[in-house]
Amino acid sequence: MHVHLREGAMLDVVAPLTSRHFSRALVMPNTTEPIRNGADVRAYRAAINRADPRFEPLMTIKLTDATTEEDIRSAAATGAVAAKLYPVGVTTNSEDGVKSPCAEHMWPLYRVMAEVGMVLSLHGETPKAFCLDREEAFLDDLVDIVATVPRLKTVLEHVTTAKAVQLIAQLGTSHNVAATITVHHLFLTLDDVIGDKLMPHHFCKPIPKRPQDQEALIKAATSGNPKFFLGTDSAPHAKGKKECDSGCAGVFTAPIAMPLLTTLFEELGCLEKLEAFTSQFGADFYGLPLNEGRLTLVKEPMLVPDSYVGIVPFYAGKVIPWSVVP
Amino acid sequence: MHVHLREGAMLDVVAPLTSRHFSRALVMPNTTEPIRNGADVRAYRAAINRADPRFEPLMTIKLTDATTEEDIRSAAATGAVAAKLYPVGVTTNSEDGVKSPCAEHMWPLYRVMAEVGMVLSLHGETPKAFCLDREEAFLDDLVDIVATVPRLKTVLEHVTTAKAVQLIAQLGTSHNVAATITVHHLFLTLDDVIGDKLMPHHFCKPIPKRPQDQEALIKAATSGNPKFFLGTDSAPHAKGKKECDSGCAGVFTAPIAMPLLTTLFEELGCLEKLEAFTSQFGADFYGLPLNEGRLTLVKEPMLVPDSYVGIVPFYAGKVIPWSVVP
Repeated sequence: MHVHLREGAMLDVVAPLTSRHFSRALVMPNTTEPIRNGADVRAYRAAINRADPRFEPLMTIKLTDATTEEDIRSAAATGAVAAKLYPVGVTTNSEDGVKSPCAEHMWPLYRVMAEVGMVLSLHGETPKAFCLDREEAFLDDLVDIVATVPRLKTVLEHVTTAKAVQLIAQLGTSHNVAATITVHHLFLTLDDVIGDKLMPHHFCKPIPKRPQDQEALIKAATSGNPKFFLGTDSAPHAKGKKECDSGCAGVFTAPIAMPLLTTLFEELGCLEKLEAFTSQFGADFYGLPLNEGRLTLVKEPMLVPDSYVGIVPFYAGKVIPWSVVP
Repeated sequence: MHVHLREGAMLDVVAPLTSRHFSRALVMPNTTEPIRNGADVRAYRAAINRADPRFEPLMTIKLTDATTEEDIRSAAATGAVAAKLYPVGVTTNSEDGVKSPCAEHMWPLYRVMAEVGMVLSLHGETPKAFCLDREEAFLDDLVDIVATVPRLKTVLEHVTTAKAVQLIAQLGTSHNVAATITVHHLFLTLDDVIGDKLMPHHFCKPIPKRPQDQEALIKAATSGNPKFFLGTDSAPHAKGKKECDSGCAGVFTAPIAMPLLTTLFEELGCLEKLEAFTSQFGADFYGLPLNEGRLTLVKEPMLVPDSYVGIVPFYAGKVIPWSVVP
């Protein structure tokens, strides 16, 4: 329920790598040319269909301070299921992000979204706060949005802190409040980014936090609570955009997400919780029918490639005990 | 009072870049072939003299779990002024570091150091702790060492936290306890490493912390308290060892340290505190005469090069308002 497919040549590479294990996914709109309205959604969906006709993109638009009610309605009319809010400057291509999620001009947009049944997808970080405090600093805005427009379905994307997990568990109901959890945040803490050598392929936003936060994420993902479901935030960047000065944030997990999650859930003795976390709770929240096809995993080792056409994946060069049956 | 000159071709480049503004400096012993005893000290000093005859290296040895009292005595006999303790695995070339600074076998070494007048120089991080907690986790060992061998002069190198600054101010006297502060830790917080893009040339150990910690360092450096003096920890790495997967820790500041410090002290209206911080308190602590030569700075802009022979310096490509008169 959260992937980046990018555009152009990158899209052509990434779409098939994503559809191998995910027959559909919520496609993020922070492309270089942002997806802002119904016309953009149609054009981007067509490009995705060309790149991979088997894949069903769940389309989104990007909220900016220039978004109009008409942009929301036109996007909904073409079948977009969510609008993504990036606070300005928090991550890749968010320079045109929203200055203040609870500013006056945002409320009519949220109300129209609730009316047309569009989900609000939040990159929950306040950019001015210290890097480790940005998610926590955002939580007041989340509470405000849920309290003011309770009919709006609101998802806090890629949660990384125990505080956020705790708030999501308490706030609203599983019909209007949820959070996604990525694969990489289940496996990383800040130690894996800067604790020994500098690891650019573990660098992402929000930045992974403390071991206690990682534990809270694992607990939430394996809890069976329908408010927490998978959103990989699989975010490919060319190797040269990661291993460089001013490196990009994002971890590319689409090709290894399912084997790695299976490994984790097996280790924790809760394989029976895996399917709901990956395939059911998200669909239920978005009001989508469950996928008809099934993905089968076997306990046969998968050697993760060093690179997929110039994109270094998470767990590159390592062996994962589980693999997907082709 | 803390630089890395490295060895081989890197030494030949870095020694002259360091001696331009520093006529002497405490040279760290964590070279690829570590400096462990009097013989190593003599050989390394000769290599440094060949690389730059004008420069006066203040020599150090590296403590390991294999260090003997004889290693200490032989190093002191050749004029080494300090022994550096790296806990195992905390930074560049510390795989042979000390497992436990307060283990039984360390105390005789500390006592011999006190006897021969050698300073204990500490990389104050406990490697098993979470990256942001490592310096704080080390402080109990520091307290223990100072309490047990009070005659030993002990320096906590490159402090990065308000807690460490507070402890140093309280512990012992300016004759037996001190801390060095780097240039880059006065200018960086964790936000400058991972807050926006990933900045490998700001990646160092200990990792820069919160704005409150940075403020405490600035306050200590400009306080006039002789327990706090400059140790740049200038740490060159080839550009390709920084802008890569598994990047090295270290910031190369030798060529810009003095202009940048002058800029900071001027901004804070305490230029009169600069000389003691950079040139007096450290010499006093080590019992060295003050340098006779003088360095003159003028308020004329210095454009920092993008690279010095393949080493990217701190502030690369930026303009510093002050420069050193050649």
